[in-house]
Amino acid sequence: MADGHDGPGDDGFDGLETPCLLLDADRMQANIARMRAHLDGMGVTLRPHLKTAKSLDVARRAMADPSGPATVSTLREAEYFAEGGVRDMIYAVGIAPQKLDRVGAVRRRWGADLAIILDSLAQAEAVAAWSRLQRDPLPVLIEVDADGHRSGVGPRDAERLIGIGRALAAGADLRGVLLHAGDSYGLSDPAALRAAAEAERVAAVTAATILREAGLPCPIVSVGSTPTARYAEHLDGVTEMRAGVFMIGDLFQAGVGSCAVDDIALTVLATVIGHQHDKGWIITDAGWMALSRDRGTARQAVDQGYGLVCDRSGRPYPDLIVRDANQEHGILALRQGSSAARPEIPVGARVRILPNHACATGAQHDRYHAVAGGRHTGDIWPRINGW
Amino acid sequence: MADGHDGPGDDGFDGLETPCLLLDADRMQANIARMRAHLDGMGVTLRPHLKTAKSLDVARRAMADPSGPATVSTLREAEYFAEGGVRDMIYAVGIAPQKLDRVGAVRRRWGADLAIILDSLAQAEAVAAWSRLQRDPLPVLIEVDADGHRSGVGPRDAERLIGIGRALAAGADLRGVLLHAGDSYGLSDPAALRAAAEAERVAAVTAATILREAGLPCPIVSVGSTPTARYAEHLDGVTEMRAGVFMIGDLFQAGVGSCAVDDIALTVLATVIGHQHDKGWIITDAGWMALSRDRGTARQAVDQGYGLVCDRSGRPYPDLIVRDANQEHGILALRQGSSAARPEIPVGARVRILPNHACATGAQHDRYHAVAGGRHTGDIWPRINGW
Repeated sequence: MADGHDGPGDDGFDGLETPCLLLDADRMQANIARMRAHLDGMGVTLRPHLKTAKSLDVARRAMADPSGPATVSTLREAEYFAEGGVRDMIYAVGIAPQKLDRVGAVRRRWGADLAIILDSLAQAEAVAAWSRLQRDPLPVLIEVDADGHRSGVGPRDAERLIGIGRALAAGADLRGVLLHAGDSYGLSDPAALRAAAEAERVAAVTAATILREAGLPCPIVSVGSTPTARYAEHLDGVTEMRAGVFMIGDLFQAGVGSCAVDDIALTVLATVIGHQHDKGWIITDAGWMALSRDRGTARQAVDQGYGLVCDRSGRPYPDLIVRDANQEHGILALRQGSSAARPEIPVGARVRILPNHACATGAQHDRYHAVAGGRHTGDIWPRINGW
Repeated sequence: MADGHDGPGDDGFDGLETPCLLLDADRMQANIARMRAHLDGMGVTLRPHLKTAKSLDVARRAMADPSGPATVSTLREAEYFAEGGVRDMIYAVGIAPQKLDRVGAVRRRWGADLAIILDSLAQAEAVAAWSRLQRDPLPVLIEVDADGHRSGVGPRDAERLIGIGRALAAGADLRGVLLHAGDSYGLSDPAALRAAAEAERVAAVTAATILREAGLPCPIVSVGSTPTARYAEHLDGVTEMRAGVFMIGDLFQAGVGSCAVDDIALTVLATVIGHQHDKGWIITDAGWMALSRDRGTARQAVDQGYGLVCDRSGRPYPDLIVRDANQEHGILALRQGSSAARPEIPVGARVRILPNHACATGAQHDRYHAVAGGRHTGDIWPRINGW
């Protein structure tokens, strides 16, 4: 095409039904290698969170070993990854007593070391009782609240920490503490991000020290979020880092400063289906069903709409975003106030959309089409959803 | 429980893994019957849009006949419903030339009358050429722009309407015009909604008249959106109404005035997994993955957060909403400024969340658990996703 933005057609995308997910394996491998080197330098194990990718093909590239370690966000993930050979997992969402039988089944059926988390005495008592009854001492991490973001015991709440630890001792297997500095997602200043990482570390070490001084075991000190993983300067006293979106990246993480736009490995391939020329709109077949309803960048310095539009080689068109989305329609337009030239993209042409949030966009799809060297390799990497 | 809000446990929900979708078949049947009576009174055919439900079990309750008519938003839906016996469908998203072979395959394999839509001369020429080459005169509706919402030819743009109509005549089968008054979603005043419905009708009849006066066929005059379907006072000149979300309802439509909160047939069943007592938070296992990222009510008079919280019988707790959501965590709290009493809901208890947007919340799941007479019937109604 005249503007040089369209590919030569030998990228292997012509045979794909749109909308669909493209996953750039080169970018992903680089993201993983960078994070691993960073954490190796601080002497901390990476326990990748598989909730973003939900794919065994991706997991095997992110984990140190085919057996793990890994983090999961649902028991469906635990079952899927256990079936695929992963043996060391933490289910990092507070446990409900009704789910213990299913946790036990994963442990038994696949011989997987699946650990759970909790933050209340009631849960600890239920888990200890289940462990005794089933003669399966469930491994448990106490969830500690790093920053007021959601769940967890306060890191200095010795009474509750020790109470939970002692209740678990009656049957379960106390493994340590787990934190997630979720408020770091709202930051973008490097100094503030470094401070958030240090605060997460200090909270973790504080809680671990309280447990140990009470004579309770705390072998694992687990922290994690992609921004704090990226900005941590040292992790003394921490044993492992959980992060997930770092492998793939997205516009939201680029807005935080956890990655560059050029690091983002995921795009939605879309086809142009129409125009409203007088309004400067290009309409595609990738609406919010393909992109997700996530508008996380709306609260950041640069609002990316429902995503940033690239040509089929993955190069962003200046200032062209998905300005609005219906269920199966994406409306592409220049950012408000932009003086960039509007590209001419005819009906039938393909574009690629960088997503706001890789976890949310991925969840709208059941597979990735792998890309390497700028071309679709032909490999399809299935991904799962559901609970 | 003390506040009388929890069910007696004979509702059949205890055996369900959470989060999951509950679909109240009684409410849904009442919603369908009400819409059908309203449209029958105006002499207009209901062509239900199956993009909300994406379920054959629901479709059979919504369609006049197991063979249709129906509307679909993806070719995956067209294939799924054709396999299930639906024979009269419109794929109501502007066609890309690459998709014509797949349209043709649905028509051939199942003998389905699958029609497509378009709004440009380039598309019309491609469709006519395909039709001649494949000897399958594709049925086409010209998409007309009712209100500037997204796609479509202007209703008074005679040159473009007739140009497209004549291009189609060279091989394809011009069936009529199709409109969607999408801007009605931004309204809430009954008078404005009545006016939007009338504007959609007038635009449809205007475009149909232009085609007919040019000697072109226009047997179908298809309009549709849940708000305009609900508020239309007469539909003279219109032959059919497409609407989808009306069957199920959601908080967004309640905010528009298309349904009452008590009409909403869909809830997400969730389990309490923790508390932050000092903040008044109740944490559940239904985060945005189960509820979707849709925050459509944020722009309405009543912001429902990520959803309105009900007890397991489906009765809303006063002012209790999902105030924030992470991937697998929902944070329940009273609305800002509420003086309602905060309910005590212990770990392990179940709640039901009314969704902002039935299309988006449904898409996060692969099945509905049917409820009738307030109890889970044991029936699972599968639903599809993808393209």
